[in-house]
Amino acid sequence: MKAWITLIENGTTRRAEVSAQASLMEALRVNGIRLPYDCGGRGTCGKCRVTIHGEAPEPNAAERALLTAAQLQNGVRLACQTEAVSGMEVEVPRFGQLEAVIDGAAPEIPLAPLLDEVYVSIEDKEGSKDRTSALVQNGHRWPVRQLQDLAQLSPGDRAAVVCRSGDVLRIDPLEGTSQRPLLGAAVDIGTTTLAFYLRDLRSGRRLAAGAQENPQRAFGSDVIARIAYAQEHPDGIAELQQSVLQSINAGLAGAAADAGVCTEDIAVVVLAGNTVMLHMALGISAASIARAPFTPVFTELDWLSASEAGLSLDDRAQVKFLPCVSGYVGADISADLLAVRALHPEPGTSLLIDIGTNGEVVLQSETEIWACSTAAGPAFEGAAISCGMPGVPGAIATMDIDGQGRPSYTVVGDEKPRGLCGSGLVDAVAALYRRGYLDETGAFHDPELPGMGTYMDMPAFAVDARRDIWLTQKDVRELQLAKGALAAGVEVLLAAAGMTHADIERVYLAGGFGQHLQAESAAAIGLIPSAWVSRVYKLGNGAGLGAQLYMLNRGCHADLEQITADIQYIELSSRADFQMFFMEAMLLP
Amino acid sequence: MKAWITLIENGTTRRAEVSAQASLMEALRVNGIRLPYDCGGRGTCGKCRVTIHGEAPEPNAAERALLTAAQLQNGVRLACQTEAVSGMEVEVPRFGQLEAVIDGAAPEIPLAPLLDEVYVSIEDKEGSKDRTSALVQNGHRWPVRQLQDLAQLSPGDRAAVVCRSGDVLRIDPLEGTSQRPLLGAAVDIGTTTLAFYLRDLRSGRRLAAGAQENPQRAFGSDVIARIAYAQEHPDGIAELQQSVLQSINAGLAGAAADAGVCTEDIAVVVLAGNTVMLHMALGISAASIARAPFTPVFTELDWLSASEAGLSLDDRAQVKFLPCVSGYVGADISADLLAVRALHPEPGTSLLIDIGTNGEVVLQSETEIWACSTAAGPAFEGAAISCGMPGVPGAIATMDIDGQGRPSYTVVGDEKPRGLCGSGLVDAVAALYRRGYLDETGAFHDPELPGMGTYMDMPAFAVDARRDIWLTQKDVRELQLAKGALAAGVEVLLAAAGMTHADIERVYLAGGFGQHLQAESAAAIGLIPSAWVSRVYKLGNGAGLGAQLYMLNRGCHADLEQITADIQYIELSSRADFQMFFMEAMLLP
Repeated sequence: MKAWITLIENGTTRRAEVSAQASLMEALRVNGIRLPYDCGGRGTCGKCRVTIHGEAPEPNAAERALLTAAQLQNGVRLACQTEAVSGMEVEVPRFGQLEAVIDGAAPEIPLAPLLDEVYVSIEDKEGSKDRTSALVQNGHRWPVRQLQDLAQLSPGDRAAVVCRSGDVLRIDPLEGTSQRPLLGAAVDIGTTTLAFYLRDLRSGRRLAAGAQENPQRAFGSDVIARIAYAQEHPDGIAELQQSVLQSINAGLAGAAADAGVCTEDIAVVVLAGNTVMLHMALGISAASIARAPFTPVFTELDWLSASEAGLSLDDRAQVKFLPCVSGYVGADISADLLAVRALHPEPGTSLLIDIGTNGEVVLQSETEIWACSTAAGPAFEGAAISCGMPGVPGAIATMDIDGQGRPSYTVVGDEKPRGLCGSGLVDAVAALYRRGYLDETGAFHDPELPGMGTYMDMPAFAVDARRDIWLTQKDVRELQLAKGALAAGVEVLLAAAGMTHADIERVYLAGGFGQHLQAESAAAIGLIPSAWVSRVYKLGNGAGLGAQLYMLNRGCHADLEQITADIQYIELSSRADFQMFFMEAMLLP
Repeated sequence: MKAWITLIENGTTRRAEVSAQASLMEALRVNGIRLPYDCGGRGTCGKCRVTIHGEAPEPNAAERALLTAAQLQNGVRLACQTEAVSGMEVEVPRFGQLEAVIDGAAPEIPLAPLLDEVYVSIEDKEGSKDRTSALVQNGHRWPVRQLQDLAQLSPGDRAAVVCRSGDVLRIDPLEGTSQRPLLGAAVDIGTTTLAFYLRDLRSGRRLAAGAQENPQRAFGSDVIARIAYAQEHPDGIAELQQSVLQSINAGLAGAAADAGVCTEDIAVVVLAGNTVMLHMALGISAASIARAPFTPVFTELDWLSASEAGLSLDDRAQVKFLPCVSGYVGADISADLLAVRALHPEPGTSLLIDIGTNGEVVLQSETEIWACSTAAGPAFEGAAISCGMPGVPGAIATMDIDGQGRPSYTVVGDEKPRGLCGSGLVDAVAALYRRGYLDETGAFHDPELPGMGTYMDMPAFAVDARRDIWLTQKDVRELQLAKGALAAGVEVLLAAAGMTHADIERVYLAGGFGQHLQAESAAAIGLIPSAWVSRVYKLGNGAGLGAQLYMLNRGCHADLEQITADIQYIELSSRADFQMFFMEAMLLP
């Protein structure tokens, strides 16, 4: 049974077919509209607000709890709690385009080409066993498709045989002086953002870079919500896979179009991402990562064919998923560490903090590597925060409060502010603490201070009262939990390594949030010790950088193997000292 | 532009869509009707006769040369020389169903299973890196599909992990005492016949066997005609591939249906066939095999996935194409030699003669192996013989001539005779020689002998005058050429090995023709020395047997590697002594 609803988006109206009895969440997703579902559609975050024109259905308990009387009166409802009824007119809020951090640290990448090109001339000689053995060393693996190409050549033809290790990838006929382009793509599958990088594999030159929102956000903002979706829906894992694959394929096509090249000429793709994202991109259920002891199904994969990986490329292309370390220390972290080595070949004793939707911490000494993961991220990405949002246009990215309690801020994309992203949130809490609005426990202790008011029945500070953007007591608590978890993770690693704050020579911040974050504000709320402010290096998208390194320099493959073999993963939930550090680290310093 | 013609087949009439300006050869093939095209559609063999009702087009020069005036008058034309014209009514002759030799020698096959089954219980244990490494040794290759299956299991579930060498093929959940069947299929892709064998890989038990005509016959009877077709048509190689793949897939489905099992449960497929057939099954042009120095594109292939091999099976199935030795000593011969070893583990000094559409000869001593290939086959399969046909129902398979020149014969399938197949042809020539019709040079020296007459303007013997089945002077010459080439090949190998006829302890005959062949007749025409008659062992479909051996006993894999590495291939066209032996061997003894 099908039904029709009317969708109003950015002032334009269209009719959309939906399944009868589907929720608006599903109906909107099917029609390409993505709202934030931080709670994965459970009706607890209140982010997926839509306005029903005409007669709106009775609100349910979740809607009554999360929406004001005025909102309910005006037809505002939660998409995840509302059934799509035929004839319904639904207005969806404008949701900012992504402005992801795709750059950051830009170390020199010395080229050690991943692919070998052997120039040959076809000669069917008496006594040679077959064509393949006459061209390249015996033992090379020739897929059927490449044998078909080889068979099409005639004696006397010249060609370039492109190999990766013992695999023949392509055999390109040579005519005159022109040569078929040899391209590589690196993809970072972030929980929130997909980043794409296209490179010429011969020169190493960057041809294009771009980013897209991860469309899986329509199934839940964090990995746990998405795993739950996959478990609760019969084809859930396939839906999640198709969703991200479509976006990866579109991103690769877009990058190729930007560079004026063909996706056909992409010979290799290297993908980084956290363990759950890599599982889902391959259609592999990540359910086992969601329960103790958080065992992933796989951590390392051989190179795949493009079709096995579901990529719409020439099937002769090969695809590498970078290795993960554990369920919560993924290939994004392995790639970050490769990027760190490229930036500082001898990083000394250093700390890497990658704050995406999850927060991972890695401590490296001269001889050992320790890593842990904390469920710190969602707040930093704007999830679980009343007026939180990702770092997209309309998000307040930096802010301060003057002596009179008047806020000032900057907005991503120079638009009208619609909420706070992670770095704005850290700035806001740092300023409120500095200006005496918050005590050491993070409580708003004086409701009479200028700018204070009430939002969602809680004490709250008006970031922009006119636009109804508030920072509530609960939001401060969420940030305290997040930064407390992350800081406690750091303390556990230091304790495991027998080190103190003073031993850390460098602190690398990776991820989009890390790039926007002001180190001083991070120190002000106790996310990092203030002594580290001057030791901070921003990596930007370290995972994307590491994936490109892997693609351009085969010398670093051994490094990566070493790194993933050496990392000692510390599961925080099994550490007695974590809770102690956590309690302490939640306080403001 | 499309046209419609009317097809009359076995008395039933149907309308068929054809491309305008296509030949009837193409029109019939597209509509599923296969005639013999021994010359590949060049208009030189005269086998693809059809009858045009109503007004038939003017015959061309080829038709005038190959058809009698009466035939031309009655609307008989060659399908390959006639354009399909809209409104044409075409009657096609009934063409016998295949009755292939799928059995033969049946040695004991000791079981050394190809696949390992490891019984596991899913437990996500603290400290295990990932699920795969907890189940089977690290370094096993898990394709994405198998990881998806593994991810669907929950802690506590039991499963059987099926591996081949380091590859994980399946992970079958275990519930109660039932176990998923583990099946293997062997396929011999003959130029004329496809043979299928389905086995239970756990017990070795044969579940089904069957055969089908190779549908590529509609593109030409021998490999050279098919290679020419592929070169002369833009998508020729793809057409040939699709044609045989459809038949292989249908054959596997048919064998499974006969056995009451599912093709889904086929875990491995092993394929044998000559080098050209294996190239074409994979869509790889075999053009380089058709010109000196006859270099194939590949001789050995790794295991493939079912989809890479184009098989409609569960994609977790793995497919092995057995190794070839050279362009004209294919995997059918490697497989024959495996079968010989199973039959007689110590075969002494022996000769293997595999007469299919080509004729290959292998000489094995205790320490060395020599092989050569002769273009001997087509005549033995009925091609190039005026009233020749393959060994299908209606073919005269054995015959004799009494003192009064009266022929007697047996017919395949107990039908009315329609022509002579290879073994009938050998019998006929042996009898004509014995009865004094033919002299030592193979000439009919007395046109007055009983039964002699004229057919296609040549002296000919009436095998069945009423049914217009004749053996012409040219047919005798064709057989002399074929048996001469084969016998000369034997002599070249003996010379290369420094041996004489007396050194040969056993003579293995492989192939369907070898199975029907009477050793005495073979000796009578000088195909083999008469001293060898008592040393002949008939292998039947040795290639099919060898493929089954490979599937059931992994111990023989090393033997096969040894065999293909040891074989010294002797290219007859480059041997000075071949022409000398050939001239001599063409005579009747």
